Amino acid sequence: MIDLDRLIARIEQLGQVGALPGGGCKRLALTPEDAAGRALVTGWFRDLGLDVTTDVIGNTWAIRPGPGDLPPVVMGSHIDTVATGGLYDGTLGVLAGLEVIESAIEAGVETDHPLAVAFFTNEEGARFAPDMMGSGVAAGALPLDAMLASRGIDDATVDEALTAIGARGDAPVGALSPAAYLELHIEQGPVLESEGVQIGVVTGVQGISWTEFTVKGRSAHAGTTPMLMRRDAGHVAAAIAMEARAIATDFGPPQVATVGRMSLSPDLVNVVPERATLTVDLRNTDETRLAGAEARLFAFAEAAARDEGCTLTRRSLARFEPVAFDAKLVDDIATAADRLGYSHRRMPSGAGHDAQMFAPFCPSAMIFVPSRDGISHNIEEYTAPEDLERGARLLADVALARAGC
Amino acid sequence: MIDLDRLIARIEQLGQVGALPGGGCKRLALTPEDAAGRALVTGWFRDLGLDVTTDVIGNTWAIRPGPGDLPPVVMGSHIDTVATGGLYDGTLGVLAGLEVIESAIEAGVETDHPLAVAFFTNEEGARFAPDMMGSGVAAGALPLDAMLASRGIDDATVDEALTAIGARGDAPVGALSPAAYLELHIEQGPVLESEGVQIGVVTGVQGISWTEFTVKGRSAHAGTTPMLMRRDAGHVAAAIAMEARAIATDFGPPQVATVGRMSLSPDLVNVVPERATLTVDLRNTDETRLAGAEARLFAFAEAAARDEGCTLTRRSLARFEPVAFDAKLVDDIATAADRLGYSHRRMPSGAGHDAQMFAPFCPSAMIFVPSRDGISHNIEEYTAPEDLERGARLLADVALARAGC
Ligand SMILES: NC(=O)NCCC(=O)O
Ligand SMILES: NC(=O)NCCC(=O)O
Repeated sequence: MIDLDRLIARIEQLGQVGALPGGGCKRLALTPEDAAGRALVTGWFRDLGLDVTTDVIGNTWAIRPGPGDLPPVVMGSHIDTVATGGLYDGTLGVLAGLEVIESAIEAGVETDHPLAVAFFTNEEGARFAPDMMGSGVAAGALPLDAMLASRGIDDATVDEALTAIGARGDAPVGALSPAAYLELHIEQGPVLESEGVQIGVVTGVQGISWTEFTVKGRSAHAGTTPMLMRRDAGHVAAAIAMEARAIATDFGPPQVATVGRMSLSPDLVNVVPERATLTVDLRNTDETRLAGAEARLFAFAEAAARDEGCTLTRRSLARFEPVAFDAKLVDDIATAADRLGYSHRRMPSGAGHDAQMFAPFCPSAMIFVPSRDGISHNIEEYTAPEDLERGARLLADVALARAGC
Repeated sequence: MIDLDRLIARIEQLGQVGALPGGGCKRLALTPEDAAGRALVTGWFRDLGLDVTTDVIGNTWAIRPGPGDLPPVVMGSHIDTVATGGLYDGTLGVLAGLEVIESAIEAGVETDHPLAVAFFTNEEGARFAPDMMGSGVAAGALPLDAMLASRGIDDATVDEALTAIGARGDAPVGALSPAAYLELHIEQGPVLESEGVQIGVVTGVQGISWTEFTVKGRSAHAGTTPMLMRRDAGHVAAAIAMEARAIATDFGPPQVATVGRMSLSPDLVNVVPERATLTVDLRNTDETRLAGAEARLFAFAEAAARDEGCTLTRRSLARFEPVAFDAKLVDDIATAADRLGYSHRRMPSGAGHDAQMFAPFCPSAMIFVPSRDGISHNIEEYTAPEDLERGARLLADVALARAGC
């Protein structure tokens, strides 16, 4: 009871919004491209006759009215992308949720709990930190005011961006109160493909730590300034980047460390940089290990700055402890996968997801489908049609069961 | 016969053009600020009744007509600055040259060779590579066409920028043919100040090598991509930056190495960078050592890229071998300093200068005055009035003697 062609057609149509020349797309949160994506998806919600609501941070959900006033079983994810995004990250969870509802309507299937589909604002965290911002606000885990004040990579605040694209709704924080939350997502990593497994039954999400370091040194002449007299902010930044890699190596998997952003000022070939900023993304499934990685990185950064005669400031952009999903819901997914004959394995998620923000407040869980070559946040991101179908069917199965049909 | 107040007033007035909020100034080559600086200085040239000429790359010189048609003794430097520039780098050489001519006119001193003062386009190399571009073209050492096609940090070409600010003149390459070239400049380094010496008699300029590296890897998800599967262009860039520092340390003085520019793409906190560019500025007074530093850096960069599964391209932005100034002119400067009672020492220049471009074609030399704390390419750049005066007097002495008076 899933129309795969319709699902794929929608994924491709949404992929045209913010399409990049070489494939993939760029729909950074709350940009005009995101606005166009929101309009397209909300149009599909309305075409089905669903009740559409948008809250004060732009989260949007559509409910198929049910017989009573039980809370809805929500299927959701996000439609924003990174700057080098693919077609599936986030959109699959939203459009598969829509497909489940449309199929249920077509099949005349009624449920005790209403079915709902949602997309949340700025899940990627690529424009505004932290990631999972909209779902974090919706679930009450992140304070609305601080999030509205978050300044993006282009210096606009979330507040300004919401206004600019007209994405602010009037539903208050807490207006969405799911009976359960389910998210289908591409794995974005290599595990399922390399093991030849069809479905990932996601047990939880690893902890995430994002730190921005700003190093201040002194601009100086590249030709005349003896090495020992330099206070080179760029050198400290490079040293921190190397240490991040060393931490990942020394800790071993599942520790990962990424320097995604770096910039120097004045950024001129013959001027010793007076300022450098960089971000370090650290993740681990184990909170103690993650805190240990942070401690080592922070201590190193302080010492490196001091040795170079620079000053260092450090700002936390995101910090989420590891999250465990609802044991019963996780079991239900595994059982349903068995019933459908899909091979599956339990696994933690390497990426952050909206589901983790709901996990403390309602039974929440996730389903992964394979990513070709484990690639995501890249225009080459791809998941095969049969995997999309298995994921959507399993989502339908679990959601309908939860909703009571 | 130098009016120090007039000289300082002009330095300060020119320093108002492109003034930065905290002091210092930003007059990147061929920007509107540079245009305003050119207009101001050219106005002073004309006020003195000098013959002003501008050539096809914007170099501008002013000649005090002499009795016959001997070639001029040229005093020159540049008026462009880096983005965090001070008030003295370049401007001192130009405005002291102007002061020497004005004082000579006032004193009624006639010379056999005409006296001339010049400023050359894009000496800093901060907007367009290479540095010493205008003087290199004027002296016939750099090809005009390639220089006009050079693309700046803002993507405009020299050709476009010349047109945009109307700085292109009609004098052809080679129109300026000095009998001798003399340049007064701040040291921009710590040697004179730390040794308590008043004048640097510059024997030559160290070799300069500027390389831009572009690393291409693969964008990937920061949370899901195992460390061993990454092709992280940013990691390679950081490793190259660390190696540049290690080369300077291992080679020891006078080897210096600077990473002035670095940028990552897509430059997002949770995306492994797919592209990184960085520049490395290497300098040494010894050509063999400089070539050795380049060889080690290039080999390291290739290996680092290969180890990370990335590709590397490398582009030379500037390459100048060490230059020796004219022995007789250097001796003349030392002798004149003795006569004036100024303490002095011979020293190589750490920075590149327009004088080095003329050195192969006519007797050329330079005079340094101390820089406070050795700081330059920084808004704190400062040279005390008495040092400015000594430098200008010595310049006058040597220039008038050369010109025959
Ligand atoms: N799923 C996903 O790519 N989320 C972005 C947040 C993160 O994990 O960095
Ligand atoms: N004098 C000076 O700062 N020149 C700029 C060229 C360089 O040495 O990088």
